[in-house]
Amino acid sequence: MSETRRIYTELCHSTVDRITVRGVDLCSELIGKVSFTEMMFFDILGRRPTLAETRIVDAVLVTLMEHGLAPSAIAARLTYSGAPEALQGAVAAGLLGGGSALLGTLESSARLLNKLVVDPAGVEAAARREAESCRATATAVPGFGHPYHKPDDPRTATLFRLARSLGVPGKHIEACEILSSAVDAAFGKHLVINASAACGALLCEIGVPVDIARGFALVSRSAGLVAHVYEESKRPIIWSTLKAVGDAVPYVGPDGTPAGKWA
Amino acid sequence: MSETRRIYTELCHSTVDRITVRGVDLCSELIGKVSFTEMMFFDILGRRPTLAETRIVDAVLVTLMEHGLAPSAIAARLTYSGAPEALQGAVAAGLLGGGSALLGTLESSARLLNKLVVDPAGVEAAARREAESCRATATAVPGFGHPYHKPDDPRTATLFRLARSLGVPGKHIEACEILSSAVDAAFGKHLVINASAACGALLCEIGVPVDIARGFALVSRSAGLVAHVYEESKRPIIWSTLKAVGDAVPYVGPDGTPAGKWA
Amino acid sequence: MSETRRIYTELCHSTVDRITVRGVDLCSELIGKVSFTEMMFFDILGRRPTLAETRIVDAVLVTLMEHGLAPSAIAARLTYSGAPEALQGAVAAGLLGGGSALLGTLESSARLLNKLVVDPAGVEAAARREAESCRATATAVPGFGHPYHKPDDPRTATLFRLARSLGVPGKHIEACEILSSAVDAAFGKHLVINASAACGALLCEIGVPVDIARGFALVSRSAGLVAHVYEESKRPIIWSTLKAVGDAVPYVGPDGTPAGKWA
Amino acid sequence: MSETRRIYTELCHSTVDRITVRGVDLCSELIGKVSFTEMMFFDILGRRPTLAETRIVDAVLVTLMEHGLAPSAIAARLTYSGAPEALQGAVAAGLLGGGSALLGTLESSARLLNKLVVDPAGVEAAARREAESCRATATAVPGFGHPYHKPDDPRTATLFRLARSLGVPGKHIEACEILSSAVDAAFGKHLVINASAACGALLCEIGVPVDIARGFALVSRSAGLVAHVYEESKRPIIWSTLKAVGDAVPYVGPDGTPAGKWA
Repeated sequence: MSETRRIYTELCHSTVDRITVRGVDLCSELIGKVSFTEMMFFDILGRRPTLAETRIVDAVLVTLMEHGLAPSAIAARLTYSGAPEALQGAVAAGLLGGGSALLGTLESSARLLNKLVVDPAGVEAAARREAESCRATATAVPGFGHPYHKPDDPRTATLFRLARSLGVPGKHIEACEILSSAVDAAFGKHLVINASAACGALLCEIGVPVDIARGFALVSRSAGLVAHVYEESKRPIIWSTLKAVGDAVPYVGPDGTPAGKWA
Repeated sequence: MSETRRIYTELCHSTVDRITVRGVDLCSELIGKVSFTEMMFFDILGRRPTLAETRIVDAVLVTLMEHGLAPSAIAARLTYSGAPEALQGAVAAGLLGGGSALLGTLESSARLLNKLVVDPAGVEAAARREAESCRATATAVPGFGHPYHKPDDPRTATLFRLARSLGVPGKHIEACEILSSAVDAAFGKHLVINASAACGALLCEIGVPVDIARGFALVSRSAGLVAHVYEESKRPIIWSTLKAVGDAVPYVGPDGTPAGKWA
Repeated sequence: MSETRRIYTELCHSTVDRITVRGVDLCSELIGKVSFTEMMFFDILGRRPTLAETRIVDAVLVTLMEHGLAPSAIAARLTYSGAPEALQGAVAAGLLGGGSALLGTLESSARLLNKLVVDPAGVEAAARREAESCRATATAVPGFGHPYHKPDDPRTATLFRLARSLGVPGKHIEACEILSSAVDAAFGKHLVINASAACGALLCEIGVPVDIARGFALVSRSAGLVAHVYEESKRPIIWSTLKAVGDAVPYVGPDGTPAGKWA
Repeated sequence: MSETRRIYTELCHSTVDRITVRGVDLCSELIGKVSFTEMMFFDILGRRPTLAETRIVDAVLVTLMEHGLAPSAIAARLTYSGAPEALQGAVAAGLLGGGSALLGTLESSARLLNKLVVDPAGVEAAARREAESCRATATAVPGFGHPYHKPDDPRTATLFRLARSLGVPGKHIEACEILSSAVDAAFGKHLVINASAACGALLCEIGVPVDIARGFALVSRSAGLVAHVYEESKRPIIWSTLKAVGDAVPYVGPDGTPAGKWA
């Protein structure tokens, strides 16, 4: 293939009277005919989703949208308070926390499930090996455990039930459940399969590459962040936030003695 | 109203076994039952959309998602090339261009339509006044004109036709068309009603406040940016981009003479 | 001038063995010979600062760097907690709050001083007119007032004294003081000249265009944000921050009754 | 230590008439008395730099500020064109590319030097081992190689000479040079010690922890980005940038045939 051909984009083309997305006419084939979720799947992955795939992506996006006053929502609200004319900055600030400690769980959990389902030793043996290895090295098992939801994360059962009712292959969900039993056995107690793991498993089921799974979570969060910024614009919480943080985090000077508060 | 009541959030609440979004149980009522678009509308605006409203939001989101190698897509790809481990940063960088010169058109056009439909002089007189005032001051009419699409933006007719087939009130669409006639008369030539204006009109029709309309565009763009970053990860264009920019934009030294290029 | 000549950059040029910034050799003339502040001034404004100008920029940058647990610092820390591998995202999130409500004060105050010093009516009459107009319309005077520092902001006197000791023209500082008297007279009480106003006045004194003044503040803040992120990496405050915010901002359901807290 | 004491900040404290940064009075001790670079070092690291340390940090910051139309500068300019009212967004977008592929080199190179200088086998044996291991696994040696500057990066010699003239210990610089010889021997050709490696070595010499070294680079870049955005505001290049990218990166449809260009 010539150099000219190697550098190209497949995503979009416009002429005077026509816009084409991946070869499909935007106006006659897409607007009014497909949902946001179908369009997103098509634009990112290059094929139209089946009905089951669309409902699974919808379920994942609905699950991850709104988490209340989470770090990303607070960051977006604080940013909005300084730059209310730049809504895009507030949404961007909120998204920037979507890294390894937050959305990384979804990815590393999905990566582990993808590994288990192709392990030559079989899923059960592989799951036992992973669980015991995590136990031995006192490492967290990606996708297991949750600070609040115990003994189970209510979203996980809902997501797994939905996916099964839609007849997806089920391999990754099954691997996740086998891993769960192995984890409980290895750690000697029940650990929650959290919603990140469940969302990762569902995206794996429909062939979303792990490398881009985080992208689906970011799109979902962006909608939740808009909701938080809009609430902030109508009924700001950031002044009580600042006061609460100031009270919770005192200043301590270099001589080790706490200073007085704002006089 | 007491202090406790004034500082609060209505968005989300969690207990050990339950997550509630605006009073509705996430697991039993939302996951698997509503689409992303319905959930987004509900989370931001606090009410469930009708079927017509959902289809209109979907149409707007589908329209704004993918624009090819636009500034936001190039910014996201360049950012990804420097920080491939931080997908969230690439998406955020792309969104940050969504300001007055880009998404501002949608907002200012929607604001103008909202003003026209309540003008005591009637829409026609108000539209004529606005068009003539823009003409007299050589100001762009928000939502009119497009660098490529002529004589009409193919998305506008599609969006207006869809909205009408869904039986929305139609006031803002009508105001937009009346304004278009007034603009053509005042400027003595036909100016395109661009897709930003059409999207703004549709969001007005279903009661999305102008102040948050930009948020819908940002969510849509975030999906398109994920598509661009994913394509970049598989088949990078940024090196030819850098070379093309370097060729197109020479260095000129303080003495006014162009310097040689990279030797 | 030909089209080719109109599209160019004056900032930087590299060859195999040489890097030139605005025509000056980086290695032989700049590295080790100029400070960060001199280099920044030169790169942005295209001329080498005098000693007095450098000291004034340094004073402004030193003043604006560190404000404790301000919104930008909290946003950066929250972002870091979700994406500790992407320091650049935390710094970017913190900067994004640097908009109209925060750094806008510096800009609008500088813009007002620039206007006063050239007013044909003279500074005193112009200042009186501005102050009375703000009073009549119950508008804040840009750069006046501070939530904590009363009766005066300690940074303002320090900055003005320094600038005078360095022999800058003094026109903008004088205009600021004349405006202060006019404001006190119009409002019938003493209002603080805050540090934003003082920094804006100093940047005006040395000819920094108002349009780019915000850039100096952003560079200074970026250093403060690195300090906050580094402290966060060693001794995280975000968990107590989240708890404090959760306690300060209760959830209230759609029926108006507060929900219980995390059980 | 009690819970109250563990959650605190050491950075800043304000009272009605006083602002203290790390226990030092901002107005009487810092403004007008220390440079930006000294203040930054003090705020981040908690101790005042020596004169030599200040000059080394200045040299690193001056080196990294301006790289012409690099990806970060183009991203900032593109972002500015969409949101000219939000300078902070353009700077943030530019910084977001400062990840593993860009600033990561400085960090990984510094990490390697830190490892070499404490290797029980001695620096020479350790350097030989590292170089041969990279050669055997066809891995890039962090900090070695440059696309344009050959046979040597002019900044490296300048930085090393400066640091030596300032009498810093020199251990990391020496380790870098020993590694360079080992690399040349292992690879059978001369590889450039690039400026990232040199900057990393200098920051190591003065005790800047590797984990925060990227922060110094980000602060420096933020100043360069302001310069680019300011140039863009006066003489935009983004339209020719968009055209150049569009020409360099054609659309290819799903059937593999290139589409026509904008008619």
